[in-house]
Amino acid sequence: MIKVKGIGLTQFGELWDKDLKDLIKEAADKALDDAGMDVNEIESVYIGSMLCGEVSEQSNLGGIFSEIYGVNIPVSRVEAACASGGMASYTAIQAIKSGSINNALVIGVEKMTDIPANQMSELLMQAGAEDERTAGATFPSLFGMMTQAHMNKFGTTIEQLHFAAMICHRNAANNPLAQFKHEVSEGQIACSADIAEPLKMLHCSPISDGAAAIVLSNEEKSTDDDAFILNESLATDTISLAERENLYTLKSTQIASKQLFANSEVSIKDIGAVELHDCFSIAACMALEDIGFVDKGKGGEALEKIYNGDNKLPTLNPSGGLKASGHPVGATGVKQIAEIALQIRGQAGDRQVKDMTYGLTHNIGGSGGTTVMHLIGKI
Amino acid sequence: MIKVKGIGLTQFGELWDKDLKDLIKEAADKALDDAGMDVNEIESVYIGSMLCGEVSEQSNLGGIFSEIYGVNIPVSRVEAACASGGMASYTAIQAIKSGSINNALVIGVEKMTDIPANQMSELLMQAGAEDERTAGATFPSLFGMMTQAHMNKFGTTIEQLHFAAMICHRNAANNPLAQFKHEVSEGQIACSADIAEPLKMLHCSPISDGAAAIVLSNEEKSTDDDAFILNESLATDTISLAERENLYTLKSTQIASKQLFANSEVSIKDIGAVELHDCFSIAACMALEDIGFVDKGKGGEALEKIYNGDNKLPTLNPSGGLKASGHPVGATGVKQIAEIALQIRGQAGDRQVKDMTYGLTHNIGGSGGTTVMHLIGKI
Repeated sequence: MIKVKGIGLTQFGELWDKDLKDLIKEAADKALDDAGMDVNEIESVYIGSMLCGEVSEQSNLGGIFSEIYGVNIPVSRVEAACASGGMASYTAIQAIKSGSINNALVIGVEKMTDIPANQMSELLMQAGAEDERTAGATFPSLFGMMTQAHMNKFGTTIEQLHFAAMICHRNAANNPLAQFKHEVSEGQIACSADIAEPLKMLHCSPISDGAAAIVLSNEEKSTDDDAFILNESLATDTISLAERENLYTLKSTQIASKQLFANSEVSIKDIGAVELHDCFSIAACMALEDIGFVDKGKGGEALEKIYNGDNKLPTLNPSGGLKASGHPVGATGVKQIAEIALQIRGQAGDRQVKDMTYGLTHNIGGSGGTTVMHLIGKI
Repeated sequence: MIKVKGIGLTQFGELWDKDLKDLIKEAADKALDDAGMDVNEIESVYIGSMLCGEVSEQSNLGGIFSEIYGVNIPVSRVEAACASGGMASYTAIQAIKSGSINNALVIGVEKMTDIPANQMSELLMQAGAEDERTAGATFPSLFGMMTQAHMNKFGTTIEQLHFAAMICHRNAANNPLAQFKHEVSEGQIACSADIAEPLKMLHCSPISDGAAAIVLSNEEKSTDDDAFILNESLATDTISLAERENLYTLKSTQIASKQLFANSEVSIKDIGAVELHDCFSIAACMALEDIGFVDKGKGGEALEKIYNGDNKLPTLNPSGGLKASGHPVGATGVKQIAEIALQIRGQAGDRQVKDMTYGLTHNIGGSGGTTVMHLIGKI
């Protein structure tokens, strides 16, 4: 079995005094320390980063890792836009399953605030389709269209979507490493700036710096509070929204979720908490449906129920999610696994979810061209 | 065993009329056709590309693949600068060894000629260290320094290094897909433009567009002319030359080569042909030494011997290498495996190496921050 043996997280936010290398080192040091391991025990490293080349002018991260730690072990960088961190974890898990290695270090990292926000918005559109880019679309506008489609089809209201942000901010208030450690009200969301109709500023995740690292180890023995990777899945869909059957479904998420639970003893009803990819409030709504927590079209209703403490639904984004914990894109997928593992270990402090046995992570690239999911639990 | 079941190569060169998506599709179509397989038989795709985001404004290549073929299978992009193609192959092999998949498609792709050459030169320095970039170094200058160090330490001459280019151009003359299908003389090399002392234009690999694809399958049965991946290795070294013990050794190559042959029944003496990473002529010289074909310091002498048909040394870069076949960076590592597999199958046409049983590929990222190697042969 593959244990999440070490966890290391940096602060998420506008980290002006830290560069890519600093963030990698801080997260990796913490994860190794938490695992009680020396870097020489790590056989392979997987780094998820989307824009290290574009923003920090740095590719070939294997050489960076070698230089920081004075080791010559294999290091890969994997990229799948905002799913880069999830994909780095997925790749590490496959390597461990291959039997070629027993101990892997996964690092997700992104340094985003070193360039102007409009330039970042343009760079992020690399995760979208050429026809969308050349038409002038940005991710808020794509998700704005998805929001309108969902509203038209299912009668979802903007007030229901407010709850996605309110849930995340309430949770982030208890996460010392979150970018925004404060609650937001319905009124504040409704009065925040227009971004892409009907999405307001407070329906959108921020631009962030940060890193997350996990040590994954092939281990049989377990204590009651160890967290293990029980399964992983990865699916893709057309990069362009125009090529999809409709705008209110993420097919890659539906496929990945189905695969994750296929042949598993764990049912979706057993999930205590989910870290899902709420880059925009509508994404949280659609993910609840496409993962299978609720029927299609019931995501808006589910968000309200979760906010009000419905115990038939899982805790949503205990870390604060992308919305309030922050979204350094390459780091997000690794942080999601770290958060669920902390919850299972019972080490999540003031945001601890009760009776956590199983949790789920859901990390998408672009507007859903890629979905990576992990099922994590006690054994 | 992992068979190289399908091979697909595009023309390498200045392909003004093809974009990233065209190149991916052409190489993948050819590889699937060669394997006699439908895309629906592929379980996972690995794409190596360094600069797809910077040049073509396109990341999240999983969505691109999904859109081209109408499938929703896992697709990863891996990046390790000029070793991206080798690393994509390495990652696919590990996934097959994990038992989770049996059939993988690996694609290496790079579109480099859509931007001015000086801008490309700057982008490529993402594969180098920050101190090198900010000091104004480019890759020719880094390899120029390595050339000087090698000359000073071992008495290597520039005339010996000419042979690296002459060997590659002679081989490329028989490769219809090569960027430069013509021979070059000592005089032409010596008279070509100064690039970074003592390197001349004809000691340097070009900027190229192109793609290469291979289908890798878990298969036991074999005919005499099937090519199998016998082993793979990956090692890293400091990204900065200043942090290394010396400038005339690629430590990552030494480590990767040692690992490749450890516990293998194949000896370096059994290698019939090697596709090694000759981004600059000195890189070919150093690789011959660091892989272990000749003693340290004897690389220059070995190049001359190989040119003159010494049958104790392997055939060098039968495809024409990076120098003459072209170097679309993400494609190179995959093309190297494709070339060796074609040689083993006896399908290399006018450039066929006689009695090919075992071959080797050697793919480096940056100035050697990453080395990926593959041992390929009959079983």
